[in-house]
Amino acid sequence: MKELKAAYYVEKGQFKIGECIPHSPKVGEVRLQVAFCGVCGTDVHIFHGNMDQRVDAPLVIGHEASAVVAEIGNGVTNVKVGDRVAVRPLKFGPKHPVDKDHAHIGRNLKFIGIDSPGAFQNSWTVPAYTLHPLPDQLSLQHGAFIEPLAVACHDVKIGRVQAGENCLVIGGGPIGTLIAFVIRERGATPIVSEINPSRIAMLKDFGFLTVNPLSENIEERINKITGEAMCDCVFEVSGSRAGVETMTRVVNARGRIVMVAIHAGGPKPVDLFKFFWSEIELLGARLYEEEDYANAIKIAASGNIPFDTLITKINDLSELQAVFEEIDQNPSGMKYLIDCQA
Amino acid sequence: MKELKAAYYVEKGQFKIGECIPHSPKVGEVRLQVAFCGVCGTDVHIFHGNMDQRVDAPLVIGHEASAVVAEIGNGVTNVKVGDRVAVRPLKFGPKHPVDKDHAHIGRNLKFIGIDSPGAFQNSWTVPAYTLHPLPDQLSLQHGAFIEPLAVACHDVKIGRVQAGENCLVIGGGPIGTLIAFVIRERGATPIVSEINPSRIAMLKDFGFLTVNPLSENIEERINKITGEAMCDCVFEVSGSRAGVETMTRVVNARGRIVMVAIHAGGPKPVDLFKFFWSEIELLGARLYEEEDYANAIKIAASGNIPFDTLITKINDLSELQAVFEEIDQNPSGMKYLIDCQA
Repeated sequence: MKELKAAYYVEKGQFKIGECIPHSPKVGEVRLQVAFCGVCGTDVHIFHGNMDQRVDAPLVIGHEASAVVAEIGNGVTNVKVGDRVAVRPLKFGPKHPVDKDHAHIGRNLKFIGIDSPGAFQNSWTVPAYTLHPLPDQLSLQHGAFIEPLAVACHDVKIGRVQAGENCLVIGGGPIGTLIAFVIRERGATPIVSEINPSRIAMLKDFGFLTVNPLSENIEERINKITGEAMCDCVFEVSGSRAGVETMTRVVNARGRIVMVAIHAGGPKPVDLFKFFWSEIELLGARLYEEEDYANAIKIAASGNIPFDTLITKINDLSELQAVFEEIDQNPSGMKYLIDCQA
Repeated sequence: MKELKAAYYVEKGQFKIGECIPHSPKVGEVRLQVAFCGVCGTDVHIFHGNMDQRVDAPLVIGHEASAVVAEIGNGVTNVKVGDRVAVRPLKFGPKHPVDKDHAHIGRNLKFIGIDSPGAFQNSWTVPAYTLHPLPDQLSLQHGAFIEPLAVACHDVKIGRVQAGENCLVIGGGPIGTLIAFVIRERGATPIVSEINPSRIAMLKDFGFLTVNPLSENIEERINKITGEAMCDCVFEVSGSRAGVETMTRVVNARGRIVMVAIHAGGPKPVDLFKFFWSEIELLGARLYEEEDYANAIKIAASGNIPFDTLITKINDLSELQAVFEEIDQNPSGMKYLIDCQA
């Protein structure tokens, strides 16, 4: 048997490849042979050292995983050895009154891959309830998109997007692009605001309306596109100050703004007058619930999302350090996948 | 026949008493003999000259009115001469696509008493559709509270407050206090944050839990009151930076924050991270819809709101200048009513 590998985040800017020690599954647990794992923006934040207070390094990170079931613990009935699965990397903790039964944002929630070992390794043991079997028509490569696609499904659900509505997505990276696809699935019209030329080209290829706030007045453009109706729902995915400034200017009466981006680093200036004046809504959205995974798998299986085009590169696990360094230099990049068996 | 009087806002800090020229009602209009009109915070803003760009002075302002129908125009069927009414001071304009049929916040809405002559006069002509008959048990003095009470009903509706929920109202002035009463009517628990000692005493007399952020840690206090569940809904009525800072710290998972205050003067710092992290909602609320008036009249008629205690003073119309000067000097004041026939 070959030695099992794992990529450990050690400190700011540093991964090291080390040994992976397989954990036999306990009651209710499953050991996985990880197939593919995408690199998330949060992983990049960890790589930058921005989450060192939370991350107990050295730690294997990674949470956008597809996998094959290798071994099941006692009491596991939802999957069997050999099943192909996507992982919903949430470990629920004891309930707290402040949670109001929203377990996915519970105070004692642990995020697998940040608060405990993640998927950038050959063998990975997780609770069985985190697993969602993949339908036959979905490849393991595409299965690694279920996690970010579930984020997009959750965001669009929180935004209560209806058929026929006009939606602006601020930020056309991987999550913003998947949100645009889910909006389209709902029968609504996505418009994507993005500044990177190659991302814009890709978005246009997907058939999305795009707007580049660096070269055009976004408010005027949205006004024109929508026949003066402006947007029913806006997704702030950019995490930028400009995004926050734009979001309140393009919504219509009782329009919704979904806060997808993680605006850490203190309060940001928000036009509260507009909230009052047009009765607009700001709706925070984080992670996903079980139904969002079910919906993501359904949409992925429909074949309507061109995952192959969204894959910038597939690298071996042993190349993880180089992949993260490349991501930092490539603002055009979309989804980098890691082959966790290679 | 005595000469009819009107109080005109002339310029910053100046009202003048002048002649009131009665307008015979045209088709669909009604001429009112104004009974009582409350002074709203917005009127005070106008008095301070803060709305001179919008207000076409000299202008009769005032919009929290009760009245008796004096004369009806052709086609008016909803009221008859002698009826006692409350006025919903909204003149709907042509529809605009951006309104999405929310007429009360429509782009072409005119607010009667700001954009056109208001109630601080003996005789006032308004569209018939603005009128809501008062039930017999409601006095004309109390009828002047229907407008601000409808604001409170609208705010609580926007906040989707349910029985059993914990709600924090930031700011215990007239609107905040009425919101607290409407919350209680819904079977939920209002907690009011206020810094003025005499307002706090009054709120306690009403049986409300209060918290004074100047002398206690509001987060700890709310945590204790709610058994660590924190607040399901928060109403930001203070218009203060401290209120905006507090609002995101006291809500629980998926908690709602209703933006009642008018935060003019540019963007304010908001903790957007908390929106993401706990999936909280910020819900703008402005004015009222027809059903809010119906609800306000129902609650007022129930006798559950001690309007007499909320009345700081009743003055004659001719004293309007002195009333506004007094309001500026009296942070303990609640509702000043103007007797528009005296």
